[in-house]
Amino acid sequence: MDQPIGVIDSGVGGLTVARELMRQLPKEQIIYLGDTLRCPYGSRPEQEVIQFTLEMVDFLMQKKIKLLVIACNTATAFTLDLLKEKLDIPVIGVIQPGARAAIKVTKTKEVAVIGTEGTIKSEAYPQALQQISSKISVSSLACPQFVPLVERGDFSSHEMKEVVSESLASLKQVKNLDTLILGCTHYPIISDQIQLEMGNQVQIISSGEETAREVSTILSYNQLAYRGDRQPQHEFFTTGSAQLFQQIANVWMDEPVENVKHVVINQTIDNK
Amino acid sequence: MDQPIGVIDSGVGGLTVARELMRQLPKEQIIYLGDTLRCPYGSRPEQEVIQFTLEMVDFLMQKKIKLLVIACNTATAFTLDLLKEKLDIPVIGVIQPGARAAIKVTKTKEVAVIGTEGTIKSEAYPQALQQISSKISVSSLACPQFVPLVERGDFSSHEMKEVVSESLASLKQVKNLDTLILGCTHYPIISDQIQLEMGNQVQIISSGEETAREVSTILSYNQLAYRGDRQPQHEFFTTGSAQLFQQIANVWMDEPVENVKHVVINQTIDNK
Repeated sequence: MDQPIGVIDSGVGGLTVARELMRQLPKEQIIYLGDTLRCPYGSRPEQEVIQFTLEMVDFLMQKKIKLLVIACNTATAFTLDLLKEKLDIPVIGVIQPGARAAIKVTKTKEVAVIGTEGTIKSEAYPQALQQISSKISVSSLACPQFVPLVERGDFSSHEMKEVVSESLASLKQVKNLDTLILGCTHYPIISDQIQLEMGNQVQIISSGEETAREVSTILSYNQLAYRGDRQPQHEFFTTGSAQLFQQIANVWMDEPVENVKHVVINQTIDNK
Repeated sequence: MDQPIGVIDSGVGGLTVARELMRQLPKEQIIYLGDTLRCPYGSRPEQEVIQFTLEMVDFLMQKKIKLLVIACNTATAFTLDLLKEKLDIPVIGVIQPGARAAIKVTKTKEVAVIGTEGTIKSEAYPQALQQISSKISVSSLACPQFVPLVERGDFSSHEMKEVVSESLASLKQVKNLDTLILGCTHYPIISDQIQLEMGNQVQIISSGEETAREVSTILSYNQLAYRGDRQPQHEFFTTGSAQLFQQIANVWMDEPVENVKHVVINQTIDNK
């Protein structure tokens, strides 16, 4: 129960999930690993995503984590079932929690999902939604311009607002739409702007919040939750520049992030 | 995976949980048992609540349920740990899901819970909340007049509005309160009035919705979810009057409830 929760992501996006874990489960220790060196995963072949993800998992399993969160939509789509099979600890991805939350809040059964091209092409969200409820109608939209905006730190410029507005134009035409899933862990950073654009009749679902909630459920269900009281010391690792990672983390997170460590998790350097 | 989900309650209150299960998990079959004959449980001694709950569980286990929902706050407080230990299927109560949802939505960390006197006295909600996050401040309030109002079918009279207003008066004084847990399965029936009274700055958490969401999580996590497509035939049993149960169910539920069956689950009749 004292062991940490492991969080893996292709880069910094999963920090929005880590932030929510820290907020909703303040007694739990987080170990985060971002594969910033080889980010993004969205455009890579499935086999490569699986290999890279397994390398991250190996690193965290040596840290004796009690639960693994795949805080990356692409990695969830490609490796969730495999990792559930392979590991003897609970494994939670970011897709199913978002889908379940959407089903909970929608009244009209008109749901939309936005994400990277990889996530949208994988159809992981429509599949997760319709596996639970065939009555749900799903509109999917790739918003490839959002991640570069967010990583640039542009949360409020006129150009950013225009990009959000133009990207979402087609979704605003969907009749009776009442629920929008942010199917990319970067998007919660600009959720205020997305909400403004879509209007208050549309409820925004953040994968990060919902994943943290399900981690809480699974910890409790498996009697793995930390039961004492403590101020956990979180750890952050990146395969890329520790300095750059720390800069972004300090903008995104509610608490200051210090002491980010650079790690090498693969034997051969990948030359993209 | 084809097996039904079992739902037990001391009476009709758990129907709000069943309704949410049917809405959020439309492919799953529900078997509901309400112990209307011996309702309410709130004022009974712990040992009696345990005995009655075990009798309900025995009845449902014979129906080969794959998961048990304790849709009653009192029974959850007294029997959740016991039943988790005793049964080899997942068991979900109504308290923890509401607590986790509150932690997810609160920004101010000022949370309130309303329930029957039994539930409030048990302190099950403050315990569940603070076990996860010691920073949460919890105000608890018993609203003993709400259940009789709801069972009378009074959802809109002037008197009903006055009772709600007077009952909640002290909560409206709590500074920075932004989240209110409906800690009784009857209360979602009058949640519109409660919302009106508390104002839009307070988000209402319904145990029923949140419990259904967690049932979905646990089914998926344990690979117990029904994977085909079907229109399930739900079954409703009551230890009291089938006619009265059916009347209430048809007002509360989104779908018509037919063919409610009366059952005897205990050997000796309980004379309260």
